[in-house]
Amino acid sequence: MILKKPSRKIIAILSKNILRLRTGLGLSQEELAFKSGLHRTYIGAVERGERNITLSSLELISAALDVELTTLLEEEDS
Amino acid sequence: MILKKPSRKIIAILSKNILRLRTGLGLSQEELAFKSGLHRTYIGAVERGERNITLSSLELISAALDVELTTLLEEEDS
Repeated sequence: MILKKPSRKIIAILSKNILRLRTGLGLSQEELAFKSGLHRTYIGAVERGERNITLSSLELISAALDVELTTLLEEEDS
Repeated sequence: MILKKPSRKIIAILSKNILRLRTGLGLSQEELAFKSGLHRTYIGAVERGERNITLSSLELISAALDVELTTLLEEEDS
């Protein structure tokens, strides 16, 4: 039995981190899509937690945001 | 353009971490498969770096190994 979706918790962490880092760099979803080589609608879907993202896409997004892959999955200290 | 495979570097990190944590708990691939709800051949393929693993599967494996998801993706200090 393979779960089709990650937990709400990890989805929320990932979504918040991508949104925070992307806007921190002043990038639109379209610009992040261009930098990462992913599609704009895919970036939007990931930010809305609608995709069970793969490791390779996580890696492309982290590289485009200039952070370690693990940073995308860490709960932010606030 | 979506890369079909994660980089060799992240594959190597993930493979080593799963193997190390699994054997550290004294679990066979079959036992880890049972604990995580994933298939034994899938666990083997992930350990050999043959799968572009999804976030939900990473989460299941980290829970079965009783570590944070990010631990699976961190380079080990050695």
